Amino acid sequence: MCDNNHHNELVISDDPMHPANLICSLCAKFYEKDWCLGTGGGISIKDPHTNHYFIAPSGVQKELMKPTDLFVVKGTANSNELNVDDVTFVRRPVGLKPSDCTPLFLTCFKELDVGAVIHTHSTNAVLASLLYDDFFEISHIEQIKAMPSDKWDANANKYVNLLFQDTLRIPIIGNKNFEYELTDDLLEVCKKYPHSCAVLVRRHGIFVWGPSIAKAKIYNESIDYLLGLAIQMRQMGLPTVKSTLTQGHK
Amino acid sequence: MCDNNHHNELVISDDPMHPANLICSLCAKFYEKDWCLGTGGGISIKDPHTNHYFIAPSGVQKELMKPTDLFVVKGTANSNELNVDDVTFVRRPVGLKPSDCTPLFLTCFKELDVGAVIHTHSTNAVLASLLYDDFFEISHIEQIKAMPSDKWDANANKYVNLLFQDTLRIPIIGNKNFEYELTDDLLEVCKKYPHSCAVLVRRHGIFVWGPSIAKAKIYNESIDYLLGLAIQMRQMGLPTVKSTLTQGHK
Amino acid sequence: MCDNNHHNELVISDDPMHPANLICSLCAKFYEKDWCLGTGGGISIKDPHTNHYFIAPSGVQKELMKPTDLFVVKGTANSNELNVDDVTFVRRPVGLKPSDCTPLFLTCFKELDVGAVIHTHSTNAVLASLLYDDFFEISHIEQIKAMPSDKWDANANKYVNLLFQDTLRIPIIGNKNFEYELTDDLLEVCKKYPHSCAVLVRRHGIFVWGPSIAKAKIYNESIDYLLGLAIQMRQMGLPTVKSTLTQGHK
Amino acid sequence: MCDNNHHNELVISDDPMHPANLICSLCAKFYEKDWCLGTGGGISIKDPHTNHYFIAPSGVQKELMKPTDLFVVKGTANSNELNVDDVTFVRRPVGLKPSDCTPLFLTCFKELDVGAVIHTHSTNAVLASLLYDDFFEISHIEQIKAMPSDKWDANANKYVNLLFQDTLRIPIIGNKNFEYELTDDLLEVCKKYPHSCAVLVRRHGIFVWGPSIAKAKIYNESIDYLLGLAIQMRQMGLPTVKSTLTQGHK
Repeated sequence: MCDNNHHNELVISDDPMHPANLICSLCAKFYEKDWCLGTGGGISIKDPHTNHYFIAPSGVQKELMKPTDLFVVKGTANSNELNVDDVTFVRRPVGLKPSDCTPLFLTCFKELDVGAVIHTHSTNAVLASLLYDDFFEISHIEQIKAMPSDKWDANANKYVNLLFQDTLRIPIIGNKNFEYELTDDLLEVCKKYPHSCAVLVRRHGIFVWGPSIAKAKIYNESIDYLLGLAIQMRQMGLPTVKSTLTQGHK
Repeated sequence: MCDNNHHNELVISDDPMHPANLICSLCAKFYEKDWCLGTGGGISIKDPHTNHYFIAPSGVQKELMKPTDLFVVKGTANSNELNVDDVTFVRRPVGLKPSDCTPLFLTCFKELDVGAVIHTHSTNAVLASLLYDDFFEISHIEQIKAMPSDKWDANANKYVNLLFQDTLRIPIIGNKNFEYELTDDLLEVCKKYPHSCAVLVRRHGIFVWGPSIAKAKIYNESIDYLLGLAIQMRQMGLPTVKSTLTQGHK
Repeated sequence: MCDNNHHNELVISDDPMHPANLICSLCAKFYEKDWCLGTGGGISIKDPHTNHYFIAPSGVQKELMKPTDLFVVKGTANSNELNVDDVTFVRRPVGLKPSDCTPLFLTCFKELDVGAVIHTHSTNAVLASLLYDDFFEISHIEQIKAMPSDKWDANANKYVNLLFQDTLRIPIIGNKNFEYELTDDLLEVCKKYPHSCAVLVRRHGIFVWGPSIAKAKIYNESIDYLLGLAIQMRQMGLPTVKSTLTQGHK
Repeated sequence: MCDNNHHNELVISDDPMHPANLICSLCAKFYEKDWCLGTGGGISIKDPHTNHYFIAPSGVQKELMKPTDLFVVKGTANSNELNVDDVTFVRRPVGLKPSDCTPLFLTCFKELDVGAVIHTHSTNAVLASLLYDDFFEISHIEQIKAMPSDKWDANANKYVNLLFQDTLRIPIIGNKNFEYELTDDLLEVCKKYPHSCAVLVRRHGIFVWGPSIAKAKIYNESIDYLLGLAIQMRQMGLPTVKSTLTQGHK
């Protein structure tokens, strides 16, 4: 039935901030940054008003993707009730398969209660995963202040961001042959780093999430800046976590 | 006769996916990536419906190329019957010469039975050709999964892609003074690597092909990503083919 | 009262050179250069005709900023009279907070009598701040001639620019947890370098100012070019201040 | 008189290939490549039909330059008759000064009989000028074939291009405090390298010329590609001129 009915109303909108439009416009931007070339990478967004999850197709050139290429999963107001193991699509474009990341994306929505997930094959992410063991870490860089901490601000109803002197840690998990096999490892490492908004996948790339696509985008580009900076610092022999003993006033 | 008749109907189309338009728009994009500057590089596409082969002119700024600058060769449904040694153009723009790559492009179409060939002078390709001997190789990187393997999937009627743990190998041939002189060496190395979709030409660049221009583009940008990553890995002292003995869990 | 009245007339203009439009268009350009990603960085401009100071909001994606997102402070013809400690906004967008840099920006306007201030998180600025101690310095590079010197030209009513053989020095101050805490250190170091048009903030980025936004932009991009060049020179073992003894004719 | 008459007809044209339009559009492109930021660099073109020389103003942001910002010098059909020491402008924009490169540009037109001159502050040019002594040299790279040789082809009425195995040499001269002071050194070195289409200026940038702006652009971007490649090769310990003894088949 679904295949006969394209349900284009779910993905066609004049609003550039509609999730279907945002996935396409951001993927085109990410392609320019070499984050999702060769059909790699992707973005998934939950529409909090309709509880629809928008998911990119597999094997498609991400910079050429159109809203009508997107799959849509119907959830409930409670993300916990999302059925990850038996996904039913309310929109399934003819001739396309959903992204191999679909189980991983939906698990993030269900278990981490997020509003958007970004996945890239960023070279900085791959290189950093080879330079660090269990987690990437960096401290004493201003851009760290764009990243969330584990401290809850009851008044603002959100986690406050890290301070300049704090250490950002992003866990690294090993890659598997299929992306759906990463799900358990991602959940496992998120138990150890419950406030992390990202996981590096060794020799693969990165997954970044946030309460909204705007936040996830800010986190993703801040992390990529920090990964790139860290790689250059390591090449210059500088540690990325500041030690007052070895670094002096720098 | 051909010179008097421009046969513009072969190259003028409103469809952005027409081969003549794709060659021009992709060359403009490739110029932005420094893959075909200074008139270097090019793209050739076979139209499977008309058996026309579209070929760029020589010595033209590739980012400024217009559809009317293109040469067209008429083939038959069977690519094997293409006459490479005595090419007859059904469209030959006045005042232009066909690309020096023409014999090489047509040989790829004839002998490798492909739908499109991309040639670039990518710096990553040139540098990698100086860091590796007989072939470039890389394993255990997620982007490898965008590349085809030698395993045929009878159901899908195509070769399946490499797995993450597989090793991608791209043969390297020496450069010659003229591009047509590369033809024999390219065919020779393709016998040794019959499922390769690319050949590096030392101190020159790369040729990448695929069943369609979309596939060739995906392969080309995935390879360039992998070449760039490999160069950075080598600069950090990391091997590009993973050895469990020396690399541990990384 | 201010919140009820949006005073859009202060920020809505058809003129692309209006400060509100320039802040938005330049921030979008700076985002492309990775100078103000992840909501970082910003620009503030004084309109010399109206004595209005235009200030970006905090926590906003700088490349998506609209003129109506901007705060406006009313000053007097005499910048010295600007009240930095008790800022009153004549325009305050609902739901937004002014940039954390506001006290720093206004201090630059008041104490340094400038027309525009640019702040970025440029990777070159952060890396240079780790390679140099009290100040960055470079000499004998042509681009230095785009930077102002401390020599006043009474006829032209402006400071003349540095010569090729001059040494450009940009002081470096340590970072603090909050940007307003940088104000005293910035003023202190500007007493020591009274003609500097920029201050590097270690592990943070750079502040650059000028008599106009055009000049501040020229200084900012020239400095970033020089910082990037210096980092590459240092990686090649070349000193950035030329010593005739060690460098010979180079 | 000239100041009262703007002679806009010399620079206003609907044709994107008009020299005044080309200077502006190419400078905007070169700005994107960081070749002429901070008001640095520039382009000068001779119109062979009218014998007008189009010259950019000094101290202007090159990416924002408009055709009406351009100066125009009237020459004769014989470039040798150009009066470089006492330049008379047939168009002189009010409030602007001609580029400091004007004498150098006009000397190239007069003494080298060229159609266009490009000047950039390319980082690759500056770095290469620090890695090489009297001249930059590179051999055995395909892109070299885009560069002209000293061999005249009487049939084609032009110099043939270098072969792959040839060595491209670009002389390097020392910088001076003022650009007009470079004129004598440039002419001097061009006597030694009479077929060079470029001169590197140490710690400054590069001048590149050709019979037309199209050729000069092709030469400039090919040289920059080769300079960038050479810098990376040197960083990897690879010589840029191939020695069969030390390099083997690579």
